[in-house]
Amino acid sequence: MDKSTFLNHKKIAFFLFFSISVIFSLAQEKPVDLVYPHLDAANSRWFFFSSACRPFGLVNLSPDNELGGAWGSGYRYNTNEIKGFSHVHAWQLSAVSVLPVNGSAQDLKNNYFSAFSHEKEVVAPGYHKVELDRYKIKAELTSTTRVGFHKYTYENQDQKGIIVKLTGPNGPCDLTKGKIEKVNNREFSGYVVNDATRRRPNPTPVFFYIELDTKVKNLITWEGTNTNENSKGVEGAETGALITFENKTNKPVLMKVGISYTNAEEAKKNIQAELNHWDFEQVVADSKEEWNSWLSKIEVSGGTQNERIRFYTDLWHGLQGRRIISDASGAYSDFTGPERKIKQIPRDKNGTPKFNHHNFDAFWGAQWTINTLWPLVYPKVAGDFCNSMLLYYNDGGLIPRGPSGGNYTYVMVGASTTPFVVSTWMKGIHDFDINLAYEGLKKNHMPGGIMGKAGYEHNTSEGGGIEEYIEKGYVPFPRKPHIEGFHKDGAGMTMEYAFQDWTLAQLAKKLGKTEDYKTFLKRSNNWKNLFDTSYGFIRPKGIDGSWKTPYDPYQYQNDGFVESNAAQMTWYVPQDFKGLAELMGGEEAMANKLNNEFTIAQAHGFTSGKKHADETLEQARRIPINYGNQPSMQTAFIFNTIGVPWLTQKWSRAVIDSVYTGVSPFVGYNGDEDQGLMGTLAVLMKIGLFQLDGGTTEDPVYLIGSPVFDEINISLDNQYYQGKNFKISTENNSKKNIYVQSVTLNGNPLNRMYLLHSEITKGGELHLLMGPEPNKKLK
Amino acid sequence: MDKSTFLNHKKIAFFLFFSISVIFSLAQEKPVDLVYPHLDAANSRWFFFSSACRPFGLVNLSPDNELGGAWGSGYRYNTNEIKGFSHVHAWQLSAVSVLPVNGSAQDLKNNYFSAFSHEKEVVAPGYHKVELDRYKIKAELTSTTRVGFHKYTYENQDQKGIIVKLTGPNGPCDLTKGKIEKVNNREFSGYVVNDATRRRPNPTPVFFYIELDTKVKNLITWEGTNTNENSKGVEGAETGALITFENKTNKPVLMKVGISYTNAEEAKKNIQAELNHWDFEQVVADSKEEWNSWLSKIEVSGGTQNERIRFYTDLWHGLQGRRIISDASGAYSDFTGPERKIKQIPRDKNGTPKFNHHNFDAFWGAQWTINTLWPLVYPKVAGDFCNSMLLYYNDGGLIPRGPSGGNYTYVMVGASTTPFVVSTWMKGIHDFDINLAYEGLKKNHMPGGIMGKAGYEHNTSEGGGIEEYIEKGYVPFPRKPHIEGFHKDGAGMTMEYAFQDWTLAQLAKKLGKTEDYKTFLKRSNNWKNLFDTSYGFIRPKGIDGSWKTPYDPYQYQNDGFVESNAAQMTWYVPQDFKGLAELMGGEEAMANKLNNEFTIAQAHGFTSGKKHADETLEQARRIPINYGNQPSMQTAFIFNTIGVPWLTQKWSRAVIDSVYTGVSPFVGYNGDEDQGLMGTLAVLMKIGLFQLDGGTTEDPVYLIGSPVFDEINISLDNQYYQGKNFKISTENNSKKNIYVQSVTLNGNPLNRMYLLHSEITKGGELHLLMGPEPNKKLK
Repeated sequence: MDKSTFLNHKKIAFFLFFSISVIFSLAQEKPVDLVYPHLDAANSRWFFFSSACRPFGLVNLSPDNELGGAWGSGYRYNTNEIKGFSHVHAWQLSAVSVLPVNGSAQDLKNNYFSAFSHEKEVVAPGYHKVELDRYKIKAELTSTTRVGFHKYTYENQDQKGIIVKLTGPNGPCDLTKGKIEKVNNREFSGYVVNDATRRRPNPTPVFFYIELDTKVKNLITWEGTNTNENSKGVEGAETGALITFENKTNKPVLMKVGISYTNAEEAKKNIQAELNHWDFEQVVADSKEEWNSWLSKIEVSGGTQNERIRFYTDLWHGLQGRRIISDASGAYSDFTGPERKIKQIPRDKNGTPKFNHHNFDAFWGAQWTINTLWPLVYPKVAGDFCNSMLLYYNDGGLIPRGPSGGNYTYVMVGASTTPFVVSTWMKGIHDFDINLAYEGLKKNHMPGGIMGKAGYEHNTSEGGGIEEYIEKGYVPFPRKPHIEGFHKDGAGMTMEYAFQDWTLAQLAKKLGKTEDYKTFLKRSNNWKNLFDTSYGFIRPKGIDGSWKTPYDPYQYQNDGFVESNAAQMTWYVPQDFKGLAELMGGEEAMANKLNNEFTIAQAHGFTSGKKHADETLEQARRIPINYGNQPSMQTAFIFNTIGVPWLTQKWSRAVIDSVYTGVSPFVGYNGDEDQGLMGTLAVLMKIGLFQLDGGTTEDPVYLIGSPVFDEINISLDNQYYQGKNFKISTENNSKKNIYVQSVTLNGNPLNRMYLLHSEITKGGELHLLMGPEPNKKLK
Repeated sequence: MDKSTFLNHKKIAFFLFFSISVIFSLAQEKPVDLVYPHLDAANSRWFFFSSACRPFGLVNLSPDNELGGAWGSGYRYNTNEIKGFSHVHAWQLSAVSVLPVNGSAQDLKNNYFSAFSHEKEVVAPGYHKVELDRYKIKAELTSTTRVGFHKYTYENQDQKGIIVKLTGPNGPCDLTKGKIEKVNNREFSGYVVNDATRRRPNPTPVFFYIELDTKVKNLITWEGTNTNENSKGVEGAETGALITFENKTNKPVLMKVGISYTNAEEAKKNIQAELNHWDFEQVVADSKEEWNSWLSKIEVSGGTQNERIRFYTDLWHGLQGRRIISDASGAYSDFTGPERKIKQIPRDKNGTPKFNHHNFDAFWGAQWTINTLWPLVYPKVAGDFCNSMLLYYNDGGLIPRGPSGGNYTYVMVGASTTPFVVSTWMKGIHDFDINLAYEGLKKNHMPGGIMGKAGYEHNTSEGGGIEEYIEKGYVPFPRKPHIEGFHKDGAGMTMEYAFQDWTLAQLAKKLGKTEDYKTFLKRSNNWKNLFDTSYGFIRPKGIDGSWKTPYDPYQYQNDGFVESNAAQMTWYVPQDFKGLAELMGGEEAMANKLNNEFTIAQAHGFTSGKKHADETLEQARRIPINYGNQPSMQTAFIFNTIGVPWLTQKWSRAVIDSVYTGVSPFVGYNGDEDQGLMGTLAVLMKIGLFQLDGGTTEDPVYLIGSPVFDEINISLDNQYYQGKNFKISTENNSKKNIYVQSVTLNGNPLNRMYLLHSEITKGGELHLLMGPEPNKKLK
């Protein structure tokens, strides 16, 4: 073929790759190149989608197609209009949004959105390029941890500018107030205020500092209907701004936007600390390299390319969602009380903050996801989060449940962080003060702590029912009337508290606190008070001790369980599957029942519908096992503990094939991905390691499942672990050969289907021979 | 008021009474006058509706509005056209149909149906009057046991006649062949042949003999397209006849139609034996009197008039459905083999047949209905039916399941007559040969007997699974492929067989057959092999012993249970509720579960839809307890045996109020009334006596429920019982006061919630004090 044809072929191939927004080289496949950020983007919620951001980055800069509400906003694949580039997409939070434009303030201030098309879009970890069809502007986005970096190439040189949105709806938040101030011809500072929500009680400012490489012509600002064409700045409600440039400027406009939760000065210092040059491509490359380094901690080979693409996308999601909120300097905003206070994270001897402070969702379900992934693969992150929790404890008196912008939110129920802290400590990650942690965790498990609070119960501590849990041995459902808050589902609370109590008991034991150990161990049996032997399912009890009637184990609405039904929650007893088996008539009966529940769930595709909206359909919700939300996502691994690991192999592979498969904007996590939890779950099932108890015992246990790859190489962090890496290799693995025939560890037969934390972290190789029929002797 | 007004008022009142087709006098309310034959007539199947017939009458003569199929045919309230007056409406059977007309054979032979309206209709036990709008003929129907008696008043004297339908569709039967022969100017003989069906294997003739009080002008017959205007008779397919009269005859035409299953001669003799005069009104009065005498065996007072109307309609249904098939002479047709044989019932010393021979449905569910009603209130009937069964046993070698016209049909499954025969014997009704009966019953419970046959399994004995039941302890589901028959639902069969085995064991014990007692008692535990402790429900097992998967206890279709689901059938263990309680975690857990199932069922109105057609709706069928069919109709009384009789009181009253209430053509039995079974069930619940085990132990037990009337007087048959009557009286009974506060028997406190057969049959009074709250100490 001649050269032009060759070039055309290259162009076509280039287009094809970019059309699924994945940049990778066939020659040397790098994990970062396999990430597909568009996964599930047709169904995404405000904080789901990411492009220009770093691991746990404070800034996650990306285009917004929809602006209304927490669900259905942000980047939405099916909406072909861009309404701005917001710098923060977090749980109950947003920050300043900008958009390059051509035109006058008068024409644009109420109407600056632009159409775009996916054909001309490139999305990758750390990079996003779109063309704004209305303006013919090519906009490129990248970031450091705390700075958004923009590159705008204007085709039309007339009336070039950048809209700075200071107020109005922005995802889950209403920006009620904002400020922009011209510092000089290239710099601006300001903030936007996220109004209080039912969940986040304090109106929360997020600050920005803008630096441009191009001299500004004018700052045009408006406040209501008044426009100031040559402004020094504006502050207030219904404000906004247009930064304009001279027409003659032909080169692209570069803009850095530092973000901070403390003040604009810190936002500026974040730029100084992280981005002291103007080489946009270098930052794109750095970001890519950083992502690749994180993602390469687990290297996989084998499987199809699509499976690897999906795997690294899952892993990438496991590093999204929960975000840094402290500045590069270690300054942070404490908003646990009514007044916002600026505080400082302790510094090490070099003056560097000892850890980062974070936003995070409830850790609700974390015991089956990031409890395993982070301490094993990213131990520093696990330690950082524990320190973050203790910072909240110091500041506000409680280890939080879902803090947002420094605020407590009390999302979901229970002391859901306990298993995470216990697991981190048990795994030898001792970066935090365990005595303080124990004090805080124990407080959470007692009246006055987080177990006393229902979802979003800010002003009282009645909804959690901790007193009734201690006194009666269960939290009643229905609760007494007029209690504040959401998720007042006593039976679900009881199940969660009992498990969390058990994990705290393990820590108490480890720390030599024998009395506490006994107390919490006893409480961990409370789930049995709600086991109805006549149905073989957990069933809510009322205030007077009578069973809930009518009761339907598969009912979802008003059923006494949090985002689940009784059938799903019955399996929520990792602390005592033996006890559950006994109540069900033995391990065989229990295995049989769970197998049947899986068989029925399979007919529904293992999820309550294929997207969050489906979950409102009564029939979809009646599913016995739901892999679209956290409460029953551990169930496939229960078989491992009751003598039938081949059923774990069967069902975990079936769930992967049905739920955590596919690479398109229209499939993904079938419900609520919850800030990386479901991505993490997929990673664990695909590498075949799972911790039913969240890894909360001494030398924690990892159950062995059915890995989907030929080889999985986990790099171990030598700051924490003795070994260099741990390899999981499989032989004869295929879509049909899903059953483990035999297992060796470092060449020696392993006559069990689990590993200890110490066995993994000293490095070595687990080898699994696979086949098409189960080896039922392997237990 | 003046006399004319008074008369008008009387006329209006008269019309009102007749408009609900109930003739009664307010002065002295007679049970027969309270019967409302139109109940549920909008939903009736071929054999449901009755008017001109006697208790268990061979003839049940009534208009047919629809002719196609077993369901939805016969008298259908919403169809305002009459297509004939058929003389037999039975399980898989019909007989000759006639209709008075005006017109020529040419005009009428393919088109003689007539519109009618309910406004001019009168229906009562033993009487039916309609006006045929097309002809302006007033047609009145009454009957003796074996003779239909017609009175036709023609307004138009031209071309008067009577169509005699010999062939064509007639409900569940296709009349493939017929014959009519002119005997003389006032008499005709003939037959119709009901073609074989899937259920009834032999084409079955039913004979008639017609006698008219009016001289006939011509017999016009046709065969296909050939018409004979002056015929001596016709025989064959596609035949029919028109009997014509002289125009001048001004008086009504009276016609007797004797029916016989043996031959036309016996049909004539049936007329001679039962109807030797032409006084139509006298027969109407006799029929009414006979019905009143039967219905008065239970006299009730209190409740609303509507409740009494519904009660006697329920009781009247309990005496319908199963019908005499022997002639007045005792001749009968034995069709248990391929050849029809005419045989003779043994005669007593006066030459009278010792009993009547019968058709009957399967006795499937009879243990909870006619097992109690007939032996207690109509003991002679119970004995007669036992003798009928033994006659079949002598003739065909099997005690039958649903014989029709002398044929075996093998409807439903199991040895469903066993509990009835045992109960009859245990109650001291010793009219039959118990040794022969025991031999026949035992045969049915062993390979080669009726338990070996699935529904309608005529040619093989594989479908019943008796061998597997004996060998494995359960009948598998699914069965091995290619087995003949219906209802091959192994789990349901196992449940039924186990209970039936237990009742046979009771009889074996009574008869001193200790080995048999042990054998059948052991087999009666087989239900436990299908109890899945992990769900607390019965669950089918496959051939290899593995549980059915997927399994959903509320699934109805292909679920392994006969016309029910696992949830409903789990309660089918009257032989061992203590054992069931143990498996469910104790009596309290079991009571709680059953109470919950009732609470859920209540939201569905306790029935799987409101009519038979609804039962095909998946959602309706998922009901936990169904009072629209037999399998779970005992459940309300289970509470009585596990320490919470107040829940029996609560739920039996709730079921009555929701299901067995209302008096209109559009409500009734909410499904399948099955030849009087559901009517009988309603009677038992309304009088507050129920036998969970079908009354099959020595001195059988009657559980006490919550009667709806102030006084219930049961007349005892002094041929069988010592006492004259047994009275149940209640005090403070009302819609709110449904709970029994205290009980006395003959004035003495009764510290239990049951009576023995001997206590009832020696006569006396049970007195219940009622109140609005349960007395939970009363157990």
